[in-house]
Amino acid sequence: MGFRSFLHRITAPKFERFVSSSQPLKMVFVVNHELKMGKGKVAAQVGHAAVQATLKSGELRPELLDAWLSTGQKKICVKAEDANHIESIEREANQHQILTSKVYDAGHTQIPSGSLTVLALGPDEEEKLDNLTGKLKLL
Amino acid sequence: MGFRSFLHRITAPKFERFVSSSQPLKMVFVVNHELKMGKGKVAAQVGHAAVQATLKSGELRPELLDAWLSTGQKKICVKAEDANHIESIEREANQHQILTSKVYDAGHTQIPSGSLTVLALGPDEEEKLDNLTGKLKLL
Repeated sequence: MGFRSFLHRITAPKFERFVSSSQPLKMVFVVNHELKMGKGKVAAQVGHAAVQATLKSGELRPELLDAWLSTGQKKICVKAEDANHIESIEREANQHQILTSKVYDAGHTQIPSGSLTVLALGPDEEEKLDNLTGKLKLL
Repeated sequence: MGFRSFLHRITAPKFERFVSSSQPLKMVFVVNHELKMGKGKVAAQVGHAAVQATLKSGELRPELLDAWLSTGQKKICVKAEDANHIESIEREANQHQILTSKVYDAGHTQIPSGSLTVLALGPDEEEKLDNLTGKLKLL
């Protein structure tokens, strides 16, 4: 998606929902633990996911992005067992209208090309995200 | 900075510069190695830096952001010795008109509050960034 089209769309959001400013928001990154990525690799993949989730929420849920940006942009990294585990979390998130962004690695380094490395959830209300990922271990 | 003001400003960029589409672009994250941050901590800090650098380039250099987003959003993590080392890289980057975004940790976990954790450089031309950080070790 080009940034211009992102800007075009963000000025005409598809839907809006009231977000109380007192409700804490966060973005959660669910990392594929099976891939045993090194520190720099994981960080770059989470960086990809953070940018994707920012652009996606700017397009679809600008009120959430706005609230998250203006309240410290909380980010948490947790680990899932493998790609199947991540996809089951993604399905559950979609059922609860939580935004999701998946990152697949281009495979230039360390891991097989096309591996699902990270799922970003949100930004959304902390409580809503904790229902999905609160039991996962911190990375 | 609120997202609305970001949008307002991005539609009226302060300056533009031609970027050849054949010129590879990347974003570099210079991580403070002295802090010995764990994997999840580093990833979250790089996530912060990635979002900041995206918003900043959208505001000041939308042509670079656009080109970077449409060519794979390359990201690289390298390590610097300590905060002083990072700040010297930042000064050099500023001299070369490379965008910089610094992240200071709120200090809720692991490290002292206010620590400089990551410096993001770019997005900008790969060659230009390599002149500054090409000799640093990958994280």
